[in-house]
Amino acid sequence: MLKIGDRTFRSRLLLGTGTFPDVDVQRKAVQASETEILTFAVAKMNLDDSDDDLVSELQPDTFSMLPNTAGAKTAEEAVRIAKLARASGLSDMVKVEVIGDDQTLLPDAVETYRATEMLLEEGFITLPYIADDPVLARKLEELGAHAVMPGAAPIGTGRGILNPLHLSYIVEQANVPVIVDAGIGAPSHASLAMEMGADAVLLNRAVSQADEPVKMAEAMKLAIQAGRLSYEAGRIPVKRFAKASSPQEGVFHG
Amino acid sequence: MLKIGDRTFRSRLLLGTGTFPDVDVQRKAVQASETEILTFAVAKMNLDDSDDDLVSELQPDTFSMLPNTAGAKTAEEAVRIAKLARASGLSDMVKVEVIGDDQTLLPDAVETYRATEMLLEEGFITLPYIADDPVLARKLEELGAHAVMPGAAPIGTGRGILNPLHLSYIVEQANVPVIVDAGIGAPSHASLAMEMGADAVLLNRAVSQADEPVKMAEAMKLAIQAGRLSYEAGRIPVKRFAKASSPQEGVFHG
Amino acid sequence: MLKIGDRTFRSRLLLGTGTFPDVDVQRKAVQASETEILTFAVAKMNLDDSDDDLVSELQPDTFSMLPNTAGAKTAEEAVRIAKLARASGLSDMVKVEVIGDDQTLLPDAVETYRATEMLLEEGFITLPYIADDPVLARKLEELGAHAVMPGAAPIGTGRGILNPLHLSYIVEQANVPVIVDAGIGAPSHASLAMEMGADAVLLNRAVSQADEPVKMAEAMKLAIQAGRLSYEAGRIPVKRFAKASSPQEGVFHG
Amino acid sequence: MLKIGDRTFRSRLLLGTGTFPDVDVQRKAVQASETEILTFAVAKMNLDDSDDDLVSELQPDTFSMLPNTAGAKTAEEAVRIAKLARASGLSDMVKVEVIGDDQTLLPDAVETYRATEMLLEEGFITLPYIADDPVLARKLEELGAHAVMPGAAPIGTGRGILNPLHLSYIVEQANVPVIVDAGIGAPSHASLAMEMGADAVLLNRAVSQADEPVKMAEAMKLAIQAGRLSYEAGRIPVKRFAKASSPQEGVFHG
Repeated sequence: MLKIGDRTFRSRLLLGTGTFPDVDVQRKAVQASETEILTFAVAKMNLDDSDDDLVSELQPDTFSMLPNTAGAKTAEEAVRIAKLARASGLSDMVKVEVIGDDQTLLPDAVETYRATEMLLEEGFITLPYIADDPVLARKLEELGAHAVMPGAAPIGTGRGILNPLHLSYIVEQANVPVIVDAGIGAPSHASLAMEMGADAVLLNRAVSQADEPVKMAEAMKLAIQAGRLSYEAGRIPVKRFAKASSPQEGVFHG
Repeated sequence: MLKIGDRTFRSRLLLGTGTFPDVDVQRKAVQASETEILTFAVAKMNLDDSDDDLVSELQPDTFSMLPNTAGAKTAEEAVRIAKLARASGLSDMVKVEVIGDDQTLLPDAVETYRATEMLLEEGFITLPYIADDPVLARKLEELGAHAVMPGAAPIGTGRGILNPLHLSYIVEQANVPVIVDAGIGAPSHASLAMEMGADAVLLNRAVSQADEPVKMAEAMKLAIQAGRLSYEAGRIPVKRFAKASSPQEGVFHG
Repeated sequence: MLKIGDRTFRSRLLLGTGTFPDVDVQRKAVQASETEILTFAVAKMNLDDSDDDLVSELQPDTFSMLPNTAGAKTAEEAVRIAKLARASGLSDMVKVEVIGDDQTLLPDAVETYRATEMLLEEGFITLPYIADDPVLARKLEELGAHAVMPGAAPIGTGRGILNPLHLSYIVEQANVPVIVDAGIGAPSHASLAMEMGADAVLLNRAVSQADEPVKMAEAMKLAIQAGRLSYEAGRIPVKRFAKASSPQEGVFHG
Repeated sequence: MLKIGDRTFRSRLLLGTGTFPDVDVQRKAVQASETEILTFAVAKMNLDDSDDDLVSELQPDTFSMLPNTAGAKTAEEAVRIAKLARASGLSDMVKVEVIGDDQTLLPDAVETYRATEMLLEEGFITLPYIADDPVLARKLEELGAHAVMPGAAPIGTGRGILNPLHLSYIVEQANVPVIVDAGIGAPSHASLAMEMGADAVLLNRAVSQADEPVKMAEAMKLAIQAGRLSYEAGRIPVKRFAKASSPQEGVFHG
């Protein structure tokens, strides 16, 4: 079970709600993914208008909502957005997202650290989104962050885990959940993150922008289950030289 | 559906039966994998003694048997082994395996080509195991091979797909099933093979030598399903620059 | 020419002076490398004892000295070490190194940013050592840093450039020199950094810990020249499909 | 020194002569590369017209000529082309090139093996061009081939060494020179081939199609020297965890 703060989840897939072709596809993809945590940008929400609201439509009791602070470029802006979300009754859990570059959409380490510090003081359950920086991940954990969300690759690039060494450092040192976020493009990427010991994966565009989002949502669900099972089952080591899969002393008719 | 010769299969996972810790684990892993095709080395079988035979135990009606010619170092030896298997009533379908090196266990292209030619003349359903050589793959198809089985990496190394470019050439040109064989170590590798358009994956040590083979068999089953779904669903392209997963003009609360 | 602050250098190889097997090998490697900038840890120096001092031995007029603040875990410690170096007449140029983890030796983004800010206020020529974080690199440049020194990989791992995408972002956006630092293990790594447009490479263990440091110093010198020439010469693009190197319409005997 | 058959060479760079923008650039690039072996397609040559012939222009005494059999699709065609080259007095040394696919330009293992066998019987010094197939490489050596020329990647793709594991197998087992051929795009690729223990590198398009071929020729010359020096000097091992380049017990000011 995935534990964030005092909540537990069976699913290890977090799904972003942005950029789906339409609301119907979005709803079906959410169902196919079997996610229990939906993320969305507070800045994009019409907080006064809940008529066509996914939050209400999807029966909020069945999902945990994880608003993010996308749009913030400073710690102060992130705090303001998080407070807005909490005041609207959305959630006191927040993905701390302070983007430092409009083109790569990579996070700003210094402002993210400050924002997390401020949000923790305000009583939020904080999940900061960071680059694959092991030192920053540990500092955030020491600060009290409830999870860390290292990017696999820049948002929307679909490249998978660019630096498995850094991700492995983060996973091995962490005492809070590690949720791999951003840059996932394919089920093999999501599975690899889980095989390495990540606790969960957050997806958005890899699903919403696939040719068939609903089918891809199911693919990702299966891949994340596969990767987790592999982590538990203990994969074979990488070797330089082959050994026969039908060795001299087999157990079958050996 | 996977089609090999005139047979069709729902499962796209072929499982080797060698090197399991014991017969009980082997049987449970076979079940967890939901495989429909079992491979094994004819050279390892006691063809006269079917008492403790997996073939009989597992109810051969429910599985297709794919004997391989492991142990052969020449085309002639491969043909001899294949005939022995057919004469024993095992199968007229054969994985043509002519190993050219005792350490890397990589196949011998020249002898494999000759063996396939000879076995086709003898009326076998032939599935040659080759390195990731696109030219050899096409020549074998032109010869009449019923599938090609390029290795991801040397047998037992657990490294995954060493040369995705060559594998992509093979997949794109093929008019017979491409079954990725050898070198798979983790579900992410199996998923990637399927995402690239391979028709199936053959596993043995990645399952049989995992710490928990039964659990890994399930992981691999899910990963192969995930990879196939992804191939059908159309994954997002790889990009150099990120776009926001929560863009300015989103479809959700836009 | 490499320009750092108001100084110019013909060589694009910076060499660290630590961990050589002995002073004689160190001196010969320095000469073979044709470096013009030597780096060293202030914390390791005996500032009162210049008898066996490389600084004096190597005729400081012929080298620029780049002391680093290794040993510092906070911005304040880094400033203290830098001031000590300046007070000793070593240099007012400093590599800002604030390590955040004793095992990976990866830098602390937050403290490095603070240290750079403080050192700039004190009038130092600052070259901060960072992970491959494009946002931090730009923030440091905006702060006034005279160069940025992104790591290729963690110090001493010899893995080369783990994340070429991030390094390419850094190089493309930078208006100050980008000096790739840490993690280089082989000439191919150093050449690649230069091919990508880095302005220089800092080496230490790749040379000092090679079996033959002097020969490796020469290898690295050549590789860095090769990589720079390639950057200027404009390499061929990566393609999916081959074209003949002896095409139908060649220019030679066409 | 590189030895092929009974000839020795100081340079470890073989240069193809095709696809240069003009003869003047070609000549200068040849000089800048300091190559001693020039390769060219016999099929492209006007063997009757030596007026504007690079062979004569470049003073054949100073270069060894290595004609290739490009254009051949069968062993018989390769033999015919090689005999034509020998009859014209060009060389009895031949690069055996039997392409099996017009798009990827990858070699045909079966026909290349046959061609090499036939050419050896005819008394040629044979250097077969192959994919990165360790078994084929050894079989060719056992047949009597004077060198093996594994491709790094398909001709003209500029991708560098796609499968370092297979190349390392080839290098380690070989008792004849291993000349990495095809697919090199940048000096870092050429250096890596040499670092791994290859005996030489053959280049063509990486030089001839660079924006500035002469400058790239020099870059490649330096990179190949760097890689060879690194092979001799013994590079540091790859490690998982860093060690300080300025450790507690350094040799400099200890």
